[in-house]
Amino acid sequence: MPLSSQVSNDISVFFEPESVAVVGPTNNPLKFGHYLMLNLLDLGFKGKVYPVNLKADAVLGVKAHPRVDLIPEEVEVVAIIVPARSVPQVMKDCAKKGVKGVVILSSGFREAGGKGIKFEREIVETAKKAGIRIVGPNTTGILNTSNSFTTSFVPLPKLRKGNVAFIAQTGLFAAAAFWWILSAEPFGLSKVMGLGNKSDVDDSEALEYLARDEDTTVVAIYMEGIKEGRKFLAAAQKATQRKPVLILKSGRTEEGMKAALSHTGSLGMRDEIFDVACKKVGAIRVRDFEELMDLAKAFALQPLAKGNKIGIASMTGAGCVMAADYSTEHNLEVAELSDETVRYIGSYLPSWVKVKNPFDSEMLFESVGPEECLKISLEGMLSDRNVDCVLGVLPSSPMFAFDIETPIKELREKYPYKPLTINIIGSKDMVDLWTKQLEDISVPVYPSIERCVKALGALSRYQKI
Amino acid sequence: MPLSSQVSNDISVFFEPESVAVVGPTNNPLKFGHYLMLNLLDLGFKGKVYPVNLKADAVLGVKAHPRVDLIPEEVEVVAIIVPARSVPQVMKDCAKKGVKGVVILSSGFREAGGKGIKFEREIVETAKKAGIRIVGPNTTGILNTSNSFTTSFVPLPKLRKGNVAFIAQTGLFAAAAFWWILSAEPFGLSKVMGLGNKSDVDDSEALEYLARDEDTTVVAIYMEGIKEGRKFLAAAQKATQRKPVLILKSGRTEEGMKAALSHTGSLGMRDEIFDVACKKVGAIRVRDFEELMDLAKAFALQPLAKGNKIGIASMTGAGCVMAADYSTEHNLEVAELSDETVRYIGSYLPSWVKVKNPFDSEMLFESVGPEECLKISLEGMLSDRNVDCVLGVLPSSPMFAFDIETPIKELREKYPYKPLTINIIGSKDMVDLWTKQLEDISVPVYPSIERCVKALGALSRYQKI
Repeated sequence: MPLSSQVSNDISVFFEPESVAVVGPTNNPLKFGHYLMLNLLDLGFKGKVYPVNLKADAVLGVKAHPRVDLIPEEVEVVAIIVPARSVPQVMKDCAKKGVKGVVILSSGFREAGGKGIKFEREIVETAKKAGIRIVGPNTTGILNTSNSFTTSFVPLPKLRKGNVAFIAQTGLFAAAAFWWILSAEPFGLSKVMGLGNKSDVDDSEALEYLARDEDTTVVAIYMEGIKEGRKFLAAAQKATQRKPVLILKSGRTEEGMKAALSHTGSLGMRDEIFDVACKKVGAIRVRDFEELMDLAKAFALQPLAKGNKIGIASMTGAGCVMAADYSTEHNLEVAELSDETVRYIGSYLPSWVKVKNPFDSEMLFESVGPEECLKISLEGMLSDRNVDCVLGVLPSSPMFAFDIETPIKELREKYPYKPLTINIIGSKDMVDLWTKQLEDISVPVYPSIERCVKALGALSRYQKI
Repeated sequence: MPLSSQVSNDISVFFEPESVAVVGPTNNPLKFGHYLMLNLLDLGFKGKVYPVNLKADAVLGVKAHPRVDLIPEEVEVVAIIVPARSVPQVMKDCAKKGVKGVVILSSGFREAGGKGIKFEREIVETAKKAGIRIVGPNTTGILNTSNSFTTSFVPLPKLRKGNVAFIAQTGLFAAAAFWWILSAEPFGLSKVMGLGNKSDVDDSEALEYLARDEDTTVVAIYMEGIKEGRKFLAAAQKATQRKPVLILKSGRTEEGMKAALSHTGSLGMRDEIFDVACKKVGAIRVRDFEELMDLAKAFALQPLAKGNKIGIASMTGAGCVMAADYSTEHNLEVAELSDETVRYIGSYLPSWVKVKNPFDSEMLFESVGPEECLKISLEGMLSDRNVDCVLGVLPSSPMFAFDIETPIKELREKYPYKPLTINIIGSKDMVDLWTKQLEDISVPVYPSIERCVKALGALSRYQKI
C-alpha cells in the first residue's frame, strides 16, 4: 500500500513487509539475536522469515542462508543484529539483493564515537546509492500490532492491538515500556517505531506516516535530539491537525545532552526554543515517562473537552481545595454550576447546605450513602451545560465497599461526550480493584488529583487547536 | 508525661489520655459516631472509654452516661461528634467536669459561615476560661500508633507503628490516606494530628510537639491556611534542625483559597511569600499528595546524602539521559566517577567501552547477565567516594526474572550510609514483586525516574540544612 509514487519516500514497508531476513539470529537464548528471531516466529507474523547465519544450517528450526544476497526468494526488509564492524558488508549484500528497507538493531555506531562514526557513514552511503531506507542503527526498531511484525530483540508477549503509536529514539518502547503498557495500561499500541541514531528515517517521516495511519489516534514521541528542527515542526503541525501529538524530549540540560550524545549520538538544541515551538504547532510536551503514559491514556480512552470549565466532585474536603489549585495551574476554570445542578444535588441535602463547585460530597455521603452520593454528584456535574470536563475524587476502604462500576458505566453511556477522570485514595486492594473496573469501561483513573486534572487540561487544550 | 509545667501548653494529653469520653456515639453502623466508638474499643486502646448518650443506656455494650459532667470517674479527653448547634452546651459540661482536652469532630462551624461562626466563638470562649485545649472542630483528630488511641470516625484497620507523623488540616490522614499508607507504603505512621478549623491548637504547637516526639523522625504537614505565619515559621525552623519537615499547602490559587474557606474556614496568604519562607527555614515544600508520600518514604527509609553528587546506573540508555536531566533540575550534580570505579566496572567490559556516569549498563547486561550486571554497576556507584547518592534504573520482564533482593540487600548492608532509589519499568507483576521485595529491605522504589531523582535531591538538600 504505497503512500507515494516514489518508493524511497514510503516507509510503510517497514510495518508491512511480506518477507524479512534476519542477520545475526542465534540458537543461544542468552543472546538478543535469539529473541529477534523468536518474536518473528512466535508472535503471529504471517510473512516469510529468512535467518542469515554463516555457521548454522538452521536457526530455531528455520533453514538459514549464509548471506542476504544468497536468499533465493524476494526479501523486502532486513533486520541486522551483528556487531557494528560487520554491518557495512551486510549492507552491501542488501544492496546487491535489492531490498527495500533495513532495520539496524546493533549499537556501536555514531553514538560510540571512533570507528563507529565511519561505519555509520559507510552504511548510509551504500544504502543511499541502492535506494534502501534505514531505520536505526542502535534501536529495537519496528512493532506493528495489526500484523504482529516486530524487529524487537527483547522477549515479548503476544501483542495486543490499540490506538496509540510510539516514535522513540530508544529501544524502551518495544521492550520494557511495551511490557508495562501491555500489563498495566488500559490502552494498547498500534505501532512502535524505534529510530535510534536516525541515520536515515527520522521523526518527521515517522510522524507523517503515523498521522495518516488509520489504526492510530494518538502519537507519542520520545526523542533525545532533532536533526532538522524546521522539518519536524512542520510535520508536527500537520499531524496535530489530525490527532494529538505528545512529546517527551530529554537532553534538556547540559548533563542530559552529554548523556544523549553517547546514547544516540544526538546533538542538543536549546530547550526553551523547542518548548515554544511545540506550543506553536500544538504538540503537547510532557516531562517524564509517567506523564506520557497519563496523557496517552486520557486521549486513548476519553473524548475531548468542549471547553476549559471543570466540575469537581470530591468526597474529601482537601480534595476540593487541591483540585481547585491544580485546575488553575493547568489552565482549567472552575465552572459556575447551573441552577439546575444546584437544585438537583441540593434536593438531597439539608436546605442550609450550599451546593458549590468544587462540591464536597461528605454530607451527601452521610445522608444517602456512598453509591447514591457518587451517582448524584457526578451526574450533577456531567449533565451541567456549564461544565466541560469532570473530576471525581473517591475515598475507598474495605468497609465502605460498594458497586462503583454500574453507576459510572451508566453515566458514561448517558454522557459520552464529556471527559471524566477519577482519583481514588484508600486501601490499595480497593484502589486496584476500582481502577481496573473503571479503566475497563474506559474511565481513566490516576493515583493523584493533580494527574487527573493535568489529563483533563490536556483534553481541553488540544480541543482548542 | 507533661512536656511543660503549664498544663495548658501541653498538648501531649491528646495523644496519651488515660480516659476518654465520647459524645455522640451510636449503635447505628451508618453513622460516623458508631466508628468513633468502635475504633476506641477495637484497635487496642487500653485507657477508659465512656460513651455519652442521652437516649441509650449503653453503646456497643459499654454503659453510657447522659452528660460528660455526670461521669463519676476522671475524664482527661472528650471526643465530640454531635451536631454543631449542640457543641456549645457539651463544652460547658466539659468545663464543669474539668477535662483537659476536647477533640471536636463535628463540622458546621466557621467553615459553614452563619451560625457556625457563632458556635465556634462560643466554644473557644468557654474552653479558654476553663483551661481546656481544643483540637478542631471539623477534623478526624488524633491517631497514635504507639497506644492505638484515635478519635478517627472512619473505620480503621489495626494500626501499625512507624516513624512518620502527619499534621493535617483535613480528616484525610486519619481516614483514606491512612488506609493507603497502611496497605501500600513501606513506612508507617507514629502519630497523626488532624487540626481542622484550628480554633485553638494549631500547626505551630503540633509541630513543636512532634519535633520532640521520639517516635517521629519525619513530620509531614497538609495545610490549607496559616493563622500566625511568623509563629509557624519559627516552629518550623526549630523542627527542621531535628528532623525533616515536609509541607503540602493547598489554597495556593484564588480558586483554591475559595475552596479552602469553605472546607476549613482558612484564609489564604500569598503563595510566593510562603514558598520563600519555607526555603528560608529549611522546610521542604511538595506539590501534591503523591510527592508527600514519595518524600516521606525516602526520609523514613533512607540515610541522608552527604553531598549533592549523584551516581546513575541504568540498564536503558534513555534512562541515563532522562536521569541526567532530572538531576540537574533537582539540584544534584552528575558525579565524576573515581578511577577505581571506572576500572572496576570496566574490567567486565570490552576495552573500547568507556565507563561514564550515567552508566548505561546494557553491554554489561549482555556480557555478564542481569544479576551480575545489577551488582557490579550499583556496587561501582555505591563504593565511589565521589558519589553521594545512587539511582538504579532496571527493566523487568517475566523472561528476565532473576533474584534482585539478595544482591541489593548485600549492597545495602555493605554501604548503609549512601541513599539509593530504584526505578523499575516492565511487566506490572514483576514491577510489583520487585518493588515489594526492595521496599521490605528499606530501598524505596518509584514508578518514575524523576520521582527517584527528586527523592535523592531532597535527601541531599536536607543534609545541607
